[in-house]
Amino acid sequence: MKIKLAEQRKQKPDFSKLGFGKYFTDHLLVWEYDADKGGWQEQRIEPYDDFKLDPACCSLHYGQGIFEGLKAYKTEDGKVTMFRPRDNFERMNRSAERLCMAQFDVEEAVNGLVQLIKIEEEWIPAAEGTSLYIRPFMFGTEPFLGVHPSRRFLFTVILSPVGSYYSGGLEPTRLIVEEHYTRASQGGTGEAKCMGNYAASLLAGEEAKKKGYDQVLWLDAEYKKYVTEVGSMNMMFVIDGKVVTPMLDGTILRGITRDSAIKVLKSAGYEVEERKVEIEELVSAARDGLLEEAFGTGTAAVISPVGAITYKGSDIIINGGKMGKITSWLYDRITGIQRGRYEDEFGWVKEV
Amino acid sequence: MKIKLAEQRKQKPDFSKLGFGKYFTDHLLVWEYDADKGGWQEQRIEPYDDFKLDPACCSLHYGQGIFEGLKAYKTEDGKVTMFRPRDNFERMNRSAERLCMAQFDVEEAVNGLVQLIKIEEEWIPAAEGTSLYIRPFMFGTEPFLGVHPSRRFLFTVILSPVGSYYSGGLEPTRLIVEEHYTRASQGGTGEAKCMGNYAASLLAGEEAKKKGYDQVLWLDAEYKKYVTEVGSMNMMFVIDGKVVTPMLDGTILRGITRDSAIKVLKSAGYEVEERKVEIEELVSAARDGLLEEAFGTGTAAVISPVGAITYKGSDIIINGGKMGKITSWLYDRITGIQRGRYEDEFGWVKEV
Repeated sequence: MKIKLAEQRKQKPDFSKLGFGKYFTDHLLVWEYDADKGGWQEQRIEPYDDFKLDPACCSLHYGQGIFEGLKAYKTEDGKVTMFRPRDNFERMNRSAERLCMAQFDVEEAVNGLVQLIKIEEEWIPAAEGTSLYIRPFMFGTEPFLGVHPSRRFLFTVILSPVGSYYSGGLEPTRLIVEEHYTRASQGGTGEAKCMGNYAASLLAGEEAKKKGYDQVLWLDAEYKKYVTEVGSMNMMFVIDGKVVTPMLDGTILRGITRDSAIKVLKSAGYEVEERKVEIEELVSAARDGLLEEAFGTGTAAVISPVGAITYKGSDIIINGGKMGKITSWLYDRITGIQRGRYEDEFGWVKEV
Repeated sequence: MKIKLAEQRKQKPDFSKLGFGKYFTDHLLVWEYDADKGGWQEQRIEPYDDFKLDPACCSLHYGQGIFEGLKAYKTEDGKVTMFRPRDNFERMNRSAERLCMAQFDVEEAVNGLVQLIKIEEEWIPAAEGTSLYIRPFMFGTEPFLGVHPSRRFLFTVILSPVGSYYSGGLEPTRLIVEEHYTRASQGGTGEAKCMGNYAASLLAGEEAKKKGYDQVLWLDAEYKKYVTEVGSMNMMFVIDGKVVTPMLDGTILRGITRDSAIKVLKSAGYEVEERKVEIEELVSAARDGLLEEAFGTGTAAVISPVGAITYKGSDIIINGGKMGKITSWLYDRITGIQRGRYEDEFGWVKEV
C-alpha cells in the first residue's frame, strides 16, 4: 500500500454538532481496477481531494456505481472498533456482481480500511450516539458513451464523523405508505446497494416530507400489497408478541443491522418471523390492538422507532406514538455490542 | 456566455473508423445550478477537461443524474443541422422532475448547444451514417452523504463524432426476451432517461451477449407478459400490414425517434397502433405468417431492423432474418429528413 499523508490537517468540526455526512476526514482510500492492467492495482491512502473524472466517465451517464455504509466507534476503554466490516464488503461484492462490476478481495478491503481508520483515529467521536461513518463506494471510470460495463473502476473509502442520522434522534418517525411510486420489482436491483435505487426514491421522499412525513414505506411493485422497506432501513413489526419482518425476496436490501437485530432477538428468546407482510395485516393487527411496535433497522440510525404509519389516508398509531419496549431494548443491545458495553457473543466487532 | 477556447486542438480521429462514443471534441458546455446562488449561473464553453468532483459528490453515491442523446449533421449542401433539439431538452426537463433536479430554460439550453456546435463544426463528419453525437447530461454535485436531493447541479454537453451505433450497421439484430430480470415497473423511473435505468440493464445485456444475442427485449415488470422496449431503442412491429408499437405507459422511454417514426409512417398513410403488445401476440402472429417486420427506433441507431426474437427457447424469425420493406423505407425517410435529402415537412430540423 502507498501512503501519502496530507501536509495540512483540516480543522475538526464541533463533535457535539456533527449532523450526518457533512464533514470528511483528511484522507481517503483509493483502489483502482483496470481490466487492461491485470485488474486491481495497489491500494493507496491519499489526502482527501477532488476526483478528476473525464466528462465521459461512464458512471456519470449510466450509473454503474455501488456503495456501503458501516461505522467505527471509540469504546469506553479507548479502543477503536468496527462493526461487521467483512459483511459489508461481502455484500458490496454481491452488489458488484449485479451491476457487472469487478469483484475484490474482502480481506484486502478490510485491511485497507483498517489502515485508513488508524490514520484518522482522531476523527472518531466518542460520545454516545456518535461514530465515524465509513462510506466505501465503487464506480465505473472508463470514458465512453454506449451502454456496456466499464473496464475500469475506482473503489474508494471516505470517512465522516457523524451524530444521529435523524435530527430528532430516537424520536419515533412517521411513515407514509407509498401507493403510487415503486422502489424495486422482482428481477430489478432492489437487493443491490446501487446508486440508481436511491435516485429513484427521491421524489416519493420529497412528496412525503411536504405532507409532514419522515419517510416512505415502500410496497412491492407487482401487487402493491406487501410491505418491503423504507429505503434507508429494513422494517420490523411486533405483532402479538412476535417480531415480524419482510423476507429477503430479492427486492429488499439484505440489511446487516436487520441481520444483527434478528440474531440478537432470537438469542434473547424472541420469536422472529421472516415472511411476506401484507400492509392489510398491519391495518387489521392495529385494529385488533395487536400491532405493538414498529421500527426500522439500518447502519445510519441503527434502530429507529416508528410511531405512526399512514395508509390510504388513515393513520395507524403504534404504541401511542411512543417507542416500544422491544425497540428500546434492541437499540440498547445492538449499540451496546457496537460500543463494547455488552459482550460481543456473535463475533461482530473488529478491533482496529 | 463565457467562452474560453482550447489553446491546443486535438488531432481528429479517422472519420471512416469512428465507432460510437469513443472520441470527444475540444470543448464542452457547462452550466451550473446552485440553489443557494439564485439557481442557474452563466453558461460557459470551456476546453474539454476532467471534472473536479468532491469524493462525496452526491450523484456518485445516490445516482441523481440524467442524460439525453441527439445528433448534428453536415448536409450535402454544407449546412449544419440538428434534429429536434427542443424535444430532447423538454424530455430532459421531465426526467429532471422525476429525479428531483432543477428545471432549466429549454431555449437557453438550445442556444448554448448551438454556440458549442458552431465552435466544433470541424468535428462533424459528413459521410452517410456518420454524425456528431450530442450528449447533454446533468447530475447532482453537492458533497454530502444522506438520501436527499442535491442543491447543486452540473448541466454539461459533450460532443462525439460517431459512425454507426451497431458495428454491424444495418445488419438485422437478434433479440432475446428477458424472462428473469426487469427494467422498470409502474411507478418507477422507466420513462425518465436517468443513469440508474442503464446500470440496472447491464447484467441482462451481458448474459444475452454471452448467448449470442445483440440485445434484450424487456417485458413489463408486473406480468412479464407485455413487450416494452430494448433499453437503447423503442420497438415497432409490422403485423398484417399495420405498424404496432407498445404504448407509452410510464415504464417506457418517450423516444423522439419513436415519435418521428410514428408521424412519418402516418403521414405516408400507414396505420400505426400504440397499445399494449403481448409477447404471445408476436408468437402467434409469427406462427400465422403475419409478423412481417420488426425494428427498433432510437437516436443512436435511428432505425435498427430485428431479424429474430428468441422467447422461451424458441426463435421467432422475422422476414427470413432480413430487413423488411417498411423498415428500410422508414430508415431512408428519417435519415433523409435528418440529412436534408428530403423536405422537412414536420419542422424537425434546426439549422445551426
